[in-house]
Amino acid sequence: MKLTKLFVLAALSVASLALPAFATDPMPSWNDTAPKRAIVTFVEKVTKEGSPDFVPVAERIATFDNDGCLWSEQPMYFQAFFIFDRIKQLAPQHPEWKDKEPFASVLKGDIKSALAGGEHALIEMGMATHAGTTTEKFEKIVTDWITTAKHPKTGRLFTEMVYQPMLELLAYLRVNSFKTFIVSGGGIEFMRPWTEKVYGIPPEQVIGSSIKTKFELRDGKPVLVRLPEINFIDDKQGKPVGINQHIGRRPILAFGNSDGDLQMFQWTAAGQGSRFIGIVHHTDAEREWAYDRKSHVGRLDKALDEAKTKGWTLVNMKKDWNRVFPIPKNEQQLKQKEFLLLTYKRFKFSLEKSRLDQKSCRW
Amino acid sequence: MKLTKLFVLAALSVASLALPAFATDPMPSWNDTAPKRAIVTFVEKVTKEGSPDFVPVAERIATFDNDGCLWSEQPMYFQAFFIFDRIKQLAPQHPEWKDKEPFASVLKGDIKSALAGGEHALIEMGMATHAGTTTEKFEKIVTDWITTAKHPKTGRLFTEMVYQPMLELLAYLRVNSFKTFIVSGGGIEFMRPWTEKVYGIPPEQVIGSSIKTKFELRDGKPVLVRLPEINFIDDKQGKPVGINQHIGRRPILAFGNSDGDLQMFQWTAAGQGSRFIGIVHHTDAEREWAYDRKSHVGRLDKALDEAKTKGWTLVNMKKDWNRVFPIPKNEQQLKQKEFLLLTYKRFKFSLEKSRLDQKSCRW
Repeated sequence: MKLTKLFVLAALSVASLALPAFATDPMPSWNDTAPKRAIVTFVEKVTKEGSPDFVPVAERIATFDNDGCLWSEQPMYFQAFFIFDRIKQLAPQHPEWKDKEPFASVLKGDIKSALAGGEHALIEMGMATHAGTTTEKFEKIVTDWITTAKHPKTGRLFTEMVYQPMLELLAYLRVNSFKTFIVSGGGIEFMRPWTEKVYGIPPEQVIGSSIKTKFELRDGKPVLVRLPEINFIDDKQGKPVGINQHIGRRPILAFGNSDGDLQMFQWTAAGQGSRFIGIVHHTDAEREWAYDRKSHVGRLDKALDEAKTKGWTLVNMKKDWNRVFPIPKNEQQLKQKEFLLLTYKRFKFSLEKSRLDQKSCRW
Repeated sequence: MKLTKLFVLAALSVASLALPAFATDPMPSWNDTAPKRAIVTFVEKVTKEGSPDFVPVAERIATFDNDGCLWSEQPMYFQAFFIFDRIKQLAPQHPEWKDKEPFASVLKGDIKSALAGGEHALIEMGMATHAGTTTEKFEKIVTDWITTAKHPKTGRLFTEMVYQPMLELLAYLRVNSFKTFIVSGGGIEFMRPWTEKVYGIPPEQVIGSSIKTKFELRDGKPVLVRLPEINFIDDKQGKPVGINQHIGRRPILAFGNSDGDLQMFQWTAAGQGSRFIGIVHHTDAEREWAYDRKSHVGRLDKALDEAKTKGWTLVNMKKDWNRVFPIPKNEQQLKQKEFLLLTYKRFKFSLEKSRLDQKSCRW
């Protein structure tokens, strides 16, 4: 009992000793290469009072794309997995889907044919699966899915396929009084139920594509009903429009990974004073995926050229990140257990040794 | 010289002595009547950890209407003054307006006839005066106007016609970790240039009506062009829609003053847990204006009935506020001067007295 208490105290002191080491490097998953140095240099100069690049706290706005920038997007946008799962779930209420494309292909598990109809097919499936409920019910549907559905290749929860280096960057910016926003082509209501828990970004700082909603009183209870009608597409030219609509202030830092972010980059870069544009370049086929100019998802072509001429920061996932995904929770717990066990053994050993020493003294 | 130094020290100590007294009442412009007590009771219970009504910081969302709730709205919405001033300003570029209604009436100074065309005329004038520029240019136009234009009755800047008790309430909520938002039928881009300075509410926490914008590259420079097309009307049923779109979280406190806020009240009140609904009732014809059920601007009729059946808090401007508008800056400076002069005189007197006393001692 006493030993355990002592051990706990010892473990705590070990933990507290470990803290300052961590505090010196808020972004340990980034290698000490050019991108990390560029980020730190930028943040230090805009936060240094009296510096010609100083930016007041209220104007420290940072915007991040989501798919391919904060989490993976292969072999297709994760929201598409949600759409297909939801079609299967709703099928019993839609017997007509058996013979109606693109739904029929989804139900047969033939995703390629389902997507053959292009954008039109995708919008049709999006509406059928995202509209028709109240906002409250839809939030529950998304929450249920995101906490259980797994990625077909990695077998992980989709929220475990977020990028550890980007989580560290978000936290580093917030510690430096930046307000971090998501500006994604993905559905705003598909992201909001989990972004606060996963990224530390609250719903009011999430900007995305949306369908229209309508206020109604149902038996005296006010609800917002989701309508099968596009409200806003937050992609390409839409990104600066969405940023202006929601934030009303130009970002000083923008991060993305594809041509869909190009206009956000241009809009951000064109502001007065210091700006930072970062692009996650998917170069790591082993730990994640490798794709750019010719990809059907997250194509990075024009923005790659413009990054080179304008001096934007290209993050080479393979070279610049020493870790891609966070350590899964169970492994984390395992590591913690191992660490504690090891510390305990060492502690016990030194305690026994000191007893032996004492004995030898007495003797 | 020495005397001045001493005096400064004395004045500073007087000022610091005055501080604790202020700290005990964060809302001195509110009389100690039911509404103030209800606000304080609500804030104390939702911020008290362990209380069954406790609300985590992230969920402390408070929404405020603007016209008639944070600033006056008589004899017409202040944005209408902006529209008319802008029509006069733009007239040289629009010779056709001389013979075209409603513009012709505005140019003749006949506002009543200009408004005779109802909503349609207002929208036409709104588009003609709010669209056609870039967002950057429009921001400058609004800033120039709001810092110079004066209210025809009071002769004050419009931003000096904000309600002092509401400024105190906003600050009180923020000190208690609430995030304060504006949810107004007014133009979002008409409010954002000045809300941070005047209310302490940053642009990203302003929700309002808007026209569409379009991203363009002009000589390689990215701009957002304001189009003569309605994007969103943030009024009545639109308010909960706008809240959901921008915040994605239900407020726990909502303040307004008219039937245009009714749906925001209903939406806020229908959430789980403690809620606060407040209504500014314009009852003070002497210090401001008195109007409710029959007013053409800011009509308060249905919401007044519902407030009574649902126990929402009605703020009687005449009885519950001991001050309506802030002390104008020049008067403030005058008061400060008077105060310092008085303190200086007293100090000089006591100093001379003590010298005399000393002399008398010696003698």
